[in-house]
Amino acid sequence: MTAKTPLTVLGLGPMGQAMVTRFLDAGHPTTVWNRTPSRADALVAKGAARAATAADAVAANRLLVLSLTDYAAMDDVLAGVDLAGRVVVNLSSETPGKTVEAAARLAGRGAELLVGGVMANAEMVGHPDAYVFYSGPREVFDRHADALAVIGRPDYLGADHGLAQMLYQAQLDVFLTSLAAMLHGIALARSAGVSAERFAPYLSDNVSTLSMYVPGIAKHVDSGEHPGDLATTAMMGATAAHVVGASEAAGIDAGLPGAVKSLYDRAIAAGHGKDSFTALVNVLRG
Amino acid sequence: MTAKTPLTVLGLGPMGQAMVTRFLDAGHPTTVWNRTPSRADALVAKGAARAATAADAVAANRLLVLSLTDYAAMDDVLAGVDLAGRVVVNLSSETPGKTVEAAARLAGRGAELLVGGVMANAEMVGHPDAYVFYSGPREVFDRHADALAVIGRPDYLGADHGLAQMLYQAQLDVFLTSLAAMLHGIALARSAGVSAERFAPYLSDNVSTLSMYVPGIAKHVDSGEHPGDLATTAMMGATAAHVVGASEAAGIDAGLPGAVKSLYDRAIAAGHGKDSFTALVNVLRG
Ligand SMILES: NC(=O)c1ccc[n+]([C@@H]2O[C@H](COP(=O)([O-])OP(=O)(O)OC[C@H]3O[C@@H](n4cnc5c(N)ncnc54)[C@H](OP(=O)(O)O)[C@@H]3O)[C@@H](O)[C@H]2O)c1
Ligand SMILES: NC(=O)c1ccc[n+]([C@@H]2O[C@H](COP(=O)([O-])OP(=O)(O)OC[C@H]3O[C@@H](n4cnc5c(N)ncnc54)[C@H](OP(=O)(O)O)[C@@H]3O)[C@@H](O)[C@H]2O)c1
Repeated sequence: MTAKTPLTVLGLGPMGQAMVTRFLDAGHPTTVWNRTPSRADALVAKGAARAATAADAVAANRLLVLSLTDYAAMDDVLAGVDLAGRVVVNLSSETPGKTVEAAARLAGRGAELLVGGVMANAEMVGHPDAYVFYSGPREVFDRHADALAVIGRPDYLGADHGLAQMLYQAQLDVFLTSLAAMLHGIALARSAGVSAERFAPYLSDNVSTLSMYVPGIAKHVDSGEHPGDLATTAMMGATAAHVVGASEAAGIDAGLPGAVKSLYDRAIAAGHGKDSFTALVNVLRG
Repeated sequence: MTAKTPLTVLGLGPMGQAMVTRFLDAGHPTTVWNRTPSRADALVAKGAARAATAADAVAANRLLVLSLTDYAAMDDVLAGVDLAGRVVVNLSSETPGKTVEAAARLAGRGAELLVGGVMANAEMVGHPDAYVFYSGPREVFDRHADALAVIGRPDYLGADHGLAQMLYQAQLDVFLTSLAAMLHGIALARSAGVSAERFAPYLSDNVSTLSMYVPGIAKHVDSGEHPGDLATTAMMGATAAHVVGASEAAGIDAGLPGAVKSLYDRAIAAGHGKDSFTALVNVLRG
């Protein structure tokens, strides 16, 4: 057994705490720091080394894992700290553009940035289904992939720093919108006196079919061909209009189905009425 | 073997054609009519009886199955036709309110309305996974449930005529919004040079997890209690803001994630920041 890479984790919210626990379990000597020091207590009891300041935490190890609210918090935490020779693995959520800017700022201070996007919640950190998108210098990723595998399966996307958060945001985009849609559908059902519990099995079946559509959608979008087979833009757009009408009549906020209807309206106006609904992608691109 | 109920199908779009084919296969003497007569040709070749006019089609059988664009089309088709003693099973999509109004109009003409919402596309009509929401008089449903089972498993919701299309619209609401979200996520990925094909397996995994959340969401919504465990409104709202930012920076229309963000913003403003994201339902209800 080779010695496990020592590392520092800065940021001990639910995610940072779960990560430190996994690193300790895996035998990595782990130094921790958090703005609110008490959040380190339980981890120190499990064997983590407490750093008194962020500067001490950074000085302790070359490999720094950050789990903060966003990249602005990284700037706060690392302000005035000597970063020469450090590898910063930032697992905080951020827009892709800001991660690219941060890479340049860190490079100016002698540090390398690996951007991560963690596809797991705190409970799932370290679970076999958890994975993490990474982007940044390939050799930096390769050097640390084994240690990072403790958090979740590392999935390297490429050198462009923006990639990891771009795919993370794309996934969260689909997830958040679908969850909101589920709540919206439940609100409609409840407006007719059908409880969420009664509606749940139908809803569950419904969302279980979504993954079936992925390969066909991907093929249409990549090829730019949208043959209108069974589900045309015109037909789906008529349904979107009914959903908006049903929502308004029921006193349910129609902003979300309204945004969907607006995409259909624009696709139909652009001449895609007889194409597959996948032609919506043409109006999504500005 | 008992004789199968004879019936009439009006409206021979993709759905009506699939239904007639199933009725013929099951041995139901089937009369057909369509505004554009040529759409009946293949069905007549399979054994359907062609009616020259809508009035003839209605006169031929007591049980009428309608598969038209919407309920306005029903009014057009049945204008001036004697409907006394007829059962109209309307499987066209419509807002729930218009189905309720139609029931009253038909009652005034001596006909009973059973409203249906077909949870299947034309290819899936008659498939074991296909089902149809029905609402209207219970005894009318019971009398015809066996014949209607040919289309898909009949699921009777209640006497209120609006119920079937309300649950149909709620299901389509979730389906259309989730499909649009998938296209939006794909557009984001592609803006970073990641093809839809490469993104597809991640996306597929992502939407495959949605059904897992249904029971918990249903419990929160029905109970009105939204304990903020791992996924709080504040945290999800911050992510929604990142998705909007990432979309705008990539030149992808942000209307859909913007509608999601707006729900989070309003839920947070209403004091639900520390509650579960399921508290969004409170801002969906007007
Ligand atoms: N939770 C999830 O399911 C999940 C899943 C995937 C990704 N993520 C992402 O992972 C990151 C961490 O999430 P989280 O749920 O653990 O909690 P969080 O609330 O997003 O992050 C809290 C951490 O950031 C620190 N922090 C924030 N602003 C700071 C500042 N200006 N200076 C110093 N420290 C600051 C907090 O310190 P204090 O303790 O002093 O406040 C705390 O350690 C976030 O970007 C989140 O989007 C979360
Ligand atoms: N296709 C699906 O996957 C699906 C799934 C579930 C539910 N539905 C619903 O099922 C219904 C039928 O759908 P569809 O896909 O078969 O095709 P559709 O295009 O929605 O319906 C076309 C049918 O309606 C007739 N029609 C429309 N307006 C008319 C009018 N003013 N007077 C007389 N006839 C009129 C058409 O006649 P012509 O042939 O003369 O134009 C044709 O027979 C729709 O409400 C749809 O939303 C469809």
